[in-house]
Amino acid sequence: MIEPRILKGFRDFLPEQQSIRKNIIRRLEETFVSCGYMPIDTPVLEYADVLLGKSGGDTEKQVYRFSDHGGRDVAMRFDLTVPFARFMAQHSNELYLPFRRYHIDKVFRGENTQKGRYREFVQCDFDIVGTDSVSSDVEILLLMYRSFKAIGVEDITINIAHRGVTSSVLSALGLDDPMPVLRAIDKLFKIGREGVIKELEGIADKSICEKILDTLTMEDSPEKTLARLSDVCGKDNPHIMRLLRIWNILSELGLSHVYTINPSITRGLDYYTGVVFETFLNKLPGIGSVCSGGRYDNLVGLYSKENITGIGASIGLDRLIAGLTELGITEDMQGDNPDVLILCMSEELLPLYHRLAETLRDNKIKAEVYPDNKRFKQQFSYAEKKNIPFAIIIGEDEQKSGKIELKDLTTREQYSLSSEEELISLVIRNKNKK
Amino acid sequence: MIEPRILKGFRDFLPEQQSIRKNIIRRLEETFVSCGYMPIDTPVLEYADVLLGKSGGDTEKQVYRFSDHGGRDVAMRFDLTVPFARFMAQHSNELYLPFRRYHIDKVFRGENTQKGRYREFVQCDFDIVGTDSVSSDVEILLLMYRSFKAIGVEDITINIAHRGVTSSVLSALGLDDPMPVLRAIDKLFKIGREGVIKELEGIADKSICEKILDTLTMEDSPEKTLARLSDVCGKDNPHIMRLLRIWNILSELGLSHVYTINPSITRGLDYYTGVVFETFLNKLPGIGSVCSGGRYDNLVGLYSKENITGIGASIGLDRLIAGLTELGITEDMQGDNPDVLILCMSEELLPLYHRLAETLRDNKIKAEVYPDNKRFKQQFSYAEKKNIPFAIIIGEDEQKSGKIELKDLTTREQYSLSSEEELISLVIRNKNKK
Repeated sequence: MIEPRILKGFRDFLPEQQSIRKNIIRRLEETFVSCGYMPIDTPVLEYADVLLGKSGGDTEKQVYRFSDHGGRDVAMRFDLTVPFARFMAQHSNELYLPFRRYHIDKVFRGENTQKGRYREFVQCDFDIVGTDSVSSDVEILLLMYRSFKAIGVEDITINIAHRGVTSSVLSALGLDDPMPVLRAIDKLFKIGREGVIKELEGIADKSICEKILDTLTMEDSPEKTLARLSDVCGKDNPHIMRLLRIWNILSELGLSHVYTINPSITRGLDYYTGVVFETFLNKLPGIGSVCSGGRYDNLVGLYSKENITGIGASIGLDRLIAGLTELGITEDMQGDNPDVLILCMSEELLPLYHRLAETLRDNKIKAEVYPDNKRFKQQFSYAEKKNIPFAIIIGEDEQKSGKIELKDLTTREQYSLSSEEELISLVIRNKNKK
Repeated sequence: MIEPRILKGFRDFLPEQQSIRKNIIRRLEETFVSCGYMPIDTPVLEYADVLLGKSGGDTEKQVYRFSDHGGRDVAMRFDLTVPFARFMAQHSNELYLPFRRYHIDKVFRGENTQKGRYREFVQCDFDIVGTDSVSSDVEILLLMYRSFKAIGVEDITINIAHRGVTSSVLSALGLDDPMPVLRAIDKLFKIGREGVIKELEGIADKSICEKILDTLTMEDSPEKTLARLSDVCGKDNPHIMRLLRIWNILSELGLSHVYTINPSITRGLDYYTGVVFETFLNKLPGIGSVCSGGRYDNLVGLYSKENITGIGASIGLDRLIAGLTELGITEDMQGDNPDVLILCMSEELLPLYHRLAETLRDNKIKAEVYPDNKRFKQQFSYAEKKNIPFAIIIGEDEQKSGKIELKDLTTREQYSLSSEEELISLVIRNKNKK
C-alpha cells in the first residue's frame, strides 16, 4: 500500500474551494475578453535556456529543472512573462501589433513554503504590447479596476508610480545608479523608513536618504504628490508629464478615488521602465499587493533583435482568494452545486428519473439523480452534504397519480405538483430568491 | 540571443485556437456542472511512487520523472485518474459518497510524437464513484451524449460493451484467461479480423478465434447482438442482465439511435470490470474514439484498504478538436474577438474614448480603444486582422456636434448616431444578426 500524500507546497482543491477558484477565474476571463484581451497558451515545460536566459541566480535556484528522455535540459515555467516573451518572438509573423493577451495558469517555484507561499500557484497575467501610448497605460489601469469589480471587490486602491520619475528624482538628488536605491525603497511598506535608511547605508548619506524618502512619500493628495515630484524633476520632464497625463485622464473618468500616486512603489524587477503599480485591498492592506505590474521597454530582447514595448499586470490568485476569504466575499461564489436532487424511490422508475433530470437541465436547472435506492435518510443526508436545496420525490404512488412532490430542504416545505412545467417554474422562482 | 523555440510534442496556442479550446472547455464544464459533477484540482507534480505505483513499464518509460531540490523522487502527472484515486483515498474523511467530479487539465507523457500524439495534452475526465448502480452507468452514458450536444456534435455513436459479458463469452468458449484475448480484440478496429487472429496464434486455435470473433461482432441491431450474447452466456448471467437493463433504459429514453451494443469494445486497460464504452464521430470514425471509459471495481486499492467502485469517461480534447476542425464545426466557436474598435482620432479625446469603451462593456459589448493616433488605414487593418466587425469614429468634429460614427467593417455601411443609447442598440442588433 502506498501512502496517499502530496508534495510540500502543492495542494489539492476540493469541490467547494475549486468552485470558487473557477468562478473567480471565469469572471476575470470574461472581463479580459470584454476589453479585447485574447487567451493564449504556452507549454508547462520548456527548454531551460529559453526560460532561464535572463534570470539571475535566485530564480535559477527555485526552478524545477531536469533532463528529459531525450537528454534535453528542460524546466517547468516559473512565471507567465518569460514564456510570453518567447511566444511573441517566435510567432511575430503570425501576430499583429498592438497585441493584447491574457494567460491564467499554474507556475512552479521550488521556493520556501513558509507564510502562504506555494510551489505550485496560479498567475493571471494581462498585457498589451506593441504600443508605448498613454492610452495603453490608462487601459491597463482601468482593466485592473474592472477585474476587481467583476469579482465583487470595489474597495481597492491602485498605487501608481513611474520609474522614470523616480530615477529623475534620484538623479536630481545626486544619485546616478538608481537600482540599489529602488530595491531598498521597494521594501518601505515591509521594513519601514528606518529599515530602508539602514539598507542604504554605504550607498548614500543619511541626509540624502532622508531627502529621498521625503520626496518619495505620498502627500495628502495625489495632486500635491505630483506637484512636489514636478518641483524636483522639473516641469518639462517627460516622465512626470506622462504621469500627470495618466492621472488627469483617470480623474476625468471620475475614478480618482480608486487610484493614487505613490512614488515609493518601485517594483523590484529591473525590467520596468515606465509606470509601475500595486493594488491593495483597503480592508486588508497587510496581505500586500494583489495585482502588480508596469511598463517595460523591451519584452523580447532575449530572443529577437526586435524591440517590443508594452505594459501588463498580474493578479496573484492565491493571495487574492486568501484575502477575499478573510473578507467573507467568497461565500456567495459557490455556484456549482446542483439545484435539485431526484430521489431514487424505485429501480423501476429509473427511465422516468433520468428523463426528468434531462428536462430540468434543458431548462437550466442543475439536476442529479441519486443513484441507489437507499433509505430516505441517507439520500437527504447526501443532499445536505452537497448543499442541494431541493429534492424531488416520485415513488410508484406519485407516478400512478401523475404527481411530483418537491421538498424545499432549507424551509422543509413540501409542494405537490401536477406537471413538469409547474415544477420547473417553482424551482426557478425559488432558486432566484435564494 | 537565445533562439525562441519549444520542445517537440509541446505546443503554443495562438488566440484563434485558444479561444476555441476555451469555448469547448467552458461548454463541457457547464454540462458537467448541470449534472452535479463538481470541479476538483490536483497538483501537476506528485511523488513518483504515488503516481507510478500501479503502472507497468510502458507508463514508467514515458513519465517525466526527476529529483526535486529536496531530493524527492517526483513526477509530472500522466493522466487524471491516478491523481483522482490518490485524492479519494487521501480526502475520504472530507468527502461524501456517491462523489461526482470532473477534472479538465493538462497531462504529460514523453512518448513518441508521431501521428498527432503530443507530450502535453488535455484530458477531460468525469466520474461518479461510490455506487455500483445501473443508474450511474446510465448517467455517465447520458452525460457523454449531453457533452457532445453541448459542443454542437450530435452525430455520434457511443459503443457499449460489458467486460463481464465478454469474459463470460470467452469462458463459455473454453478460454479461462481473458486478458490477452481482450487486448487483441481491442485492436479489431485498427488491425482487422485477420490481424486479431494472427495476434491470437498460440493462445487459441484458429477455429476458436473465429468463433470468438463471430460472437463478439455486432449484429444488424443491438437487440440481436444482445440476444446472441445472451444465448452464449446464459440468460441469467448477471452481466448480460445488466447490459440489457442499460440498453432498455436508453431505448425507453428514446436514445437508441445514439448508442449501440458493440461487444468488440474491450478497452485495453486491466482495471475495467463492468460496462466499457467508446465514442465515434459518425462522419469521422477513422480518428478513433473521442470519449472512452468504463466501470471499475476498485479505484483506490493502491492507497487504501477501502474499496471504491465507480464509473467514468474521458474526452481526449486534442483529438476531438482535430476532428471538429476537420468537420468545420469549430468555425463558429471563436467568440472572443471584440465587437467594437474605437478608433483613436485625437490624443485629447482619450478620456472620451475610454469612458465610451467602459459604457459599451457595461452593456455586454466587447470593446477596445486603438491605443495610438495612427493613420486610418493602419487602425482599420488592425480591426480586420483581429476580426472586429465594427469601428467607432469620433474625431474633434464629431465630438463638437455630439455625433458618433459607426462603421460596419463587413458591409462597409456607415451610421451617424446621436447618442450612446442609439449606438448600443444598433451594435447589439447587428451583433445578434452576425
